[in-house]
Amino acid sequence: MTELWQNAMDHAVALARKAGSLVRDAVQNDMKVMLKSSSVDLVTKTDQKVEQLIIDSVKEKFPTHSFIGEESVAAGEPCVLTDNPTWIVDPVDGTTNFVHGYPFVAVSIGFAVNKKLEFGVVYSCIEDKMYTARTGQGAFCNGQPLHVSDQKEITQSIIATEFGSNRDTEVVDKIFSSMRKILCLPIHGIRGVGTAATNMCLVASGCVEAYYEIGMHCWDIAAGAVIVTEAGGVLMDVDGGPLDLMSRRVVAANNKMIAERIVKEIDAFTPLRDDAPIETKD
Amino acid sequence: MTELWQNAMDHAVALARKAGSLVRDAVQNDMKVMLKSSSVDLVTKTDQKVEQLIIDSVKEKFPTHSFIGEESVAAGEPCVLTDNPTWIVDPVDGTTNFVHGYPFVAVSIGFAVNKKLEFGVVYSCIEDKMYTARTGQGAFCNGQPLHVSDQKEITQSIIATEFGSNRDTEVVDKIFSSMRKILCLPIHGIRGVGTAATNMCLVASGCVEAYYEIGMHCWDIAAGAVIVTEAGGVLMDVDGGPLDLMSRRVVAANNKMIAERIVKEIDAFTPLRDDAPIETKD
Repeated sequence: MTELWQNAMDHAVALARKAGSLVRDAVQNDMKVMLKSSSVDLVTKTDQKVEQLIIDSVKEKFPTHSFIGEESVAAGEPCVLTDNPTWIVDPVDGTTNFVHGYPFVAVSIGFAVNKKLEFGVVYSCIEDKMYTARTGQGAFCNGQPLHVSDQKEITQSIIATEFGSNRDTEVVDKIFSSMRKILCLPIHGIRGVGTAATNMCLVASGCVEAYYEIGMHCWDIAAGAVIVTEAGGVLMDVDGGPLDLMSRRVVAANNKMIAERIVKEIDAFTPLRDDAPIETKD
Repeated sequence: MTELWQNAMDHAVALARKAGSLVRDAVQNDMKVMLKSSSVDLVTKTDQKVEQLIIDSVKEKFPTHSFIGEESVAAGEPCVLTDNPTWIVDPVDGTTNFVHGYPFVAVSIGFAVNKKLEFGVVYSCIEDKMYTARTGQGAFCNGQPLHVSDQKEITQSIIATEFGSNRDTEVVDKIFSSMRKILCLPIHGIRGVGTAATNMCLVASGCVEAYYEIGMHCWDIAAGAVIVTEAGGVLMDVDGGPLDLMSRRVVAANNKMIAERIVKEIDAFTPLRDDAPIETKD
């Protein structure tokens, strides 16, 4: 990693902290909620304000860099990863939590060059936990090194996942079927804090053995992907192949054995890719 | 409430804080895990040590009081609520979380006289949140008053529940069926932090609209029941009747409307009561 990317990472940490404090402040106040695509997919003015703050700051400091952000994509910007240095940002991961004051809301900033992730920053702003990782240099929470769990037995594991925001029967069928099969392996339990970014940080911290989900977006997991890998964990697709950041499918686990055991139980499906041409999205 | 019960409550708060700091310390260290009834029902030496600490201290200070505690009952003590002043204690609610370092573990102390709950103390020790409520005097978290959510629309709600530790097919069928029907009302989401006591405090705090579960025990919910009620919430059985503390079934909600809407979707079942004669338990 060149010095330039260290500068970018330092900037990402500062931005995540600033954005997170805005989010934390907003949780104290009344939140004006708008409907985006469904009653379970909430977006608040805070999302947009925080994303704009991050975009403006990145553009000023790194004018040649590209940007993929949840709100920008919602507004029609392309969501394609090129070789250009690219910031992949979710300003408020856990919007439903945010609206309810449920205490897990994260600012997630990933950074890729030549389509390869170089660093990830997740600020769990209500807990005040700053997770950071640079490729090849370890993962940290508030400066303390993180290590995944050393558990090798699936039956001694906690697995994190989410119900997601899609309520279509076929999708819900598969989500419940996968969850049930995994629960009854049996495992110790299923958890999920309501944000993909924080779930991935819980894998990196060793609090859960793995996290899987189908339906989240690249901006939810780009930063967490670096944090899990640098904490010693593994990433793969829900079919056991390599992770595809744009496929909206992820397994993040403490080791390959646990990841592959989960993969066997997941009823996979294929959401519309994040980098699908915009005309196919309507 | 007489002055005596205020003394008891002050003592409960001090004990919860002391117990919680022991638990927090233990999370840092290696945890020796023993199997209790199944691989998903873990108990640690810390449970037993913390419960003994609480029993010893209560017996010294209030020698005539009765005691119902998770570990004592597991060791064969009776679990029957009499008119005598009774401490109802879970020394470590969220043992699975505890074993994994998942950051929700609570010390739960409820107190009943003439079978009526007089106060509840839940110390979420990793978060360092002390929830307290005296009947008729409001609910508090770290001294700040708590209020349930004012949401009346189920479709705008988050509901907390748990998968529980029972992996019998019939029970799992009903747990998944209820969860699915509630999710698809639709609601904003389902959450669950892995401890009944903390889930109830999240209802009291307004972060979730309701919590329901079948299978937890009286010591998991006695304290939380007071905290929810004093924060303006309601309690009922999963069939809509009055809460029976010993029935191992609970709905705790921000209001009657939300509670009754959930009740309609729950596939109820009837676990062996906490106060069942001991000979029926084997």
